[in-house]
Amino acid sequence: MSDLRGQAAAAREAALCMQAVSTSEKNDALLRAAALLRERTDEILAANLIDLSSAREKGMSPAFIERLTLTEKRIEGMASGLVDVASLPDPVGEMLEKWTRPNGLAIEKVRVPIGVIAIIYESRPNVTVDAAALCLKSGNAVILRGGSDAIKSNGALCGILQEAARRAGLPEGCVSLVTDTSHEAASELMRLNGLVDVLIPRGGRGLIRSVVENATVPVIETGAGVCHVYADRDCDPEMGVTIAVSAKISRPSVCNSAETLLVDSAIAETFLPRCLAALKAKGVEIRGCERTKQICPWVGDATDEDWDTEYNDLIYSVKVVDGVDEAIAHINRHGTRHSEAIITENPKTARRFMSLVDAACVYWNASTRFTDGGEFGFGAEIGISNQKLHARGPMGLRELTTIKYKITGSGQIR
Amino acid sequence: MSDLRGQAAAAREAALCMQAVSTSEKNDALLRAAALLRERTDEILAANLIDLSSAREKGMSPAFIERLTLTEKRIEGMASGLVDVASLPDPVGEMLEKWTRPNGLAIEKVRVPIGVIAIIYESRPNVTVDAAALCLKSGNAVILRGGSDAIKSNGALCGILQEAARRAGLPEGCVSLVTDTSHEAASELMRLNGLVDVLIPRGGRGLIRSVVENATVPVIETGAGVCHVYADRDCDPEMGVTIAVSAKISRPSVCNSAETLLVDSAIAETFLPRCLAALKAKGVEIRGCERTKQICPWVGDATDEDWDTEYNDLIYSVKVVDGVDEAIAHINRHGTRHSEAIITENPKTARRFMSLVDAACVYWNASTRFTDGGEFGFGAEIGISNQKLHARGPMGLRELTTIKYKITGSGQIR
Repeated sequence: MSDLRGQAAAAREAALCMQAVSTSEKNDALLRAAALLRERTDEILAANLIDLSSAREKGMSPAFIERLTLTEKRIEGMASGLVDVASLPDPVGEMLEKWTRPNGLAIEKVRVPIGVIAIIYESRPNVTVDAAALCLKSGNAVILRGGSDAIKSNGALCGILQEAARRAGLPEGCVSLVTDTSHEAASELMRLNGLVDVLIPRGGRGLIRSVVENATVPVIETGAGVCHVYADRDCDPEMGVTIAVSAKISRPSVCNSAETLLVDSAIAETFLPRCLAALKAKGVEIRGCERTKQICPWVGDATDEDWDTEYNDLIYSVKVVDGVDEAIAHINRHGTRHSEAIITENPKTARRFMSLVDAACVYWNASTRFTDGGEFGFGAEIGISNQKLHARGPMGLRELTTIKYKITGSGQIR
Repeated sequence: MSDLRGQAAAAREAALCMQAVSTSEKNDALLRAAALLRERTDEILAANLIDLSSAREKGMSPAFIERLTLTEKRIEGMASGLVDVASLPDPVGEMLEKWTRPNGLAIEKVRVPIGVIAIIYESRPNVTVDAAALCLKSGNAVILRGGSDAIKSNGALCGILQEAARRAGLPEGCVSLVTDTSHEAASELMRLNGLVDVLIPRGGRGLIRSVVENATVPVIETGAGVCHVYADRDCDPEMGVTIAVSAKISRPSVCNSAETLLVDSAIAETFLPRCLAALKAKGVEIRGCERTKQICPWVGDATDEDWDTEYNDLIYSVKVVDGVDEAIAHINRHGTRHSEAIITENPKTARRFMSLVDAACVYWNASTRFTDGGEFGFGAEIGISNQKLHARGPMGLRELTTIKYKITGSGQIR
């Protein structure tokens, strides 16, 4: 048995015991971890310094270094995140449905932990704590596989989580870090069917594609967001401009920000000059279709590739469409089924858009930027699912559970 | 674009339109298909004869031929199945939750079709009709890929489904058959990410393993059932024998039948002779552990392999365990997380078993054989999920849907 398989087998054993761990034991572990993070901040920062100096030696980019860097404030953020998760309601044990069959069998559908959740992520060490907290609170064992560049930081953080779990009486093996950060070990983790119940990748497109291509265990695909704002002929232009601008500029690097603005041809001549000037004033580069350029000749060219591009940057592609149906068709062709918004005062048009656009979240007169576990009121999120199986959109604690049927009889046979 | 990719692209187009198809249109298609099946029984039987004669030429086994064979009665069974599915409530559009955030955003979580569902199955032509009916009723487009030996029968059946769909006004491409039954085409189907939303394999272990190993699209794993009956020290022995016998013999070929009987050592000396004699009288071959053989020396040897074997036959492995915890540990090690039963009059023991056994369905004083969409009251089932993501246990119409968040604002930005 490889080390990793042994680690996963221990996680599975722990997961079986976790089914019987109480809410207060789980919360105790989270609160102890928060206290230990605060107590041992210096130790964590020292481990992080080792990672940072290796990363600088390797000539990693400033953005990379920034994501890898821990500070007292960031550690305090993780600690208070743990306290927040401890305060959330426990999803486990919830009775979802209950019915009795004509033959007398009483069927209960109850919420239970999934079992073993593996998380593969990149350079941000805070994912170690955030992901583990959600997995443990929902009664799962978690296997963390962070990037090789954060190995010392992740080791220090995972050590604290393990100590807190041990002190709270949680089963050994319920949280562990994959210390072999080779590609081979990652591939092995993706194929541990029977031991790993679900694998959640968190990171860039390359990581997610690699997991989708190589995993044989069930995967929840997260991430990519080519989101659209559609300004309909019946929109309030003031609101349209405000949302179109904000959905791009408020945080361009995240998946729920807008990449493409679609404008109804019926209003394009008045809407576009005003909206694009506002965007330009905020430093946004505009890449427009032919019709956009006829109205605003100063904008750049959008190529076919632009419609499928997640810029994660202050770049916006803009297209004029002939009404809601063309907007829907464009989104269903180029969107990533993440978050899509229509701005209109016409309820019928809005309903058509919301019903026919194929996406996790469809917005009427609001920004796509609200697709987020916190904004939805879930308290926290482990990611945003882009697929349709199991979980769609922001994933909170409930999305880290599955169901079990408990059937009580009095000797029934078939 | 390959033929198959073109077919899947057409299915995706159809799926986007299916979101707006009404319940009565879908039911109309199902009822028309039922009528056409009855009208064209001779045509279907003629197509089936061609498949049967090829299969006989290839020297296929009698069991294989039996599965492939259509009769008037079987076609009538498919037709009445269609009528049944038409009468089931439509899961699409159900409002699952609704809440308003402090910022005024109104969030609705509604049930919507998944999109494009691909089914890969083996020699039974009735799957063509049964699976298509459930997929269409739940608002999905379906791509059917049956076995090469049933190609003429499946072609006739799918032709009827397509004609019914067309007459009912459903979008072109909502149901189609993969006519290239090569392994290459099956592999391509498993990797059509972006076009196929979920792939459900229905068939033997080899097929399911191949799909799990090769698919990059999301898969719902179905099938394998190494199910256990555990007779606890506090069981009613009469009920224990009845359930232990029935769970094996009532239909040994199906996944919810029991493969292993676990008996508490505290009652083994009285329970085993009685229970095993009853099984022997029904022609069941018994393979026992050492302790079983000490009590009933006439039984055969169980090897390590037996504990992991789904016999699908009149063979039963039998093991004596020291109480409920050893039973739970054995099941969690060797079970396939399908259906597990405890027979006991002790509620505390029953609750422990039901909480700690990791399976889709856990039974207290009832046979494992009830794990079935019909028995659960779902009206019909597309399979029994063995995995924990999305659907667990019997999958009916609701399990063929996903959710969508519809968010209504009044200009909110973030």
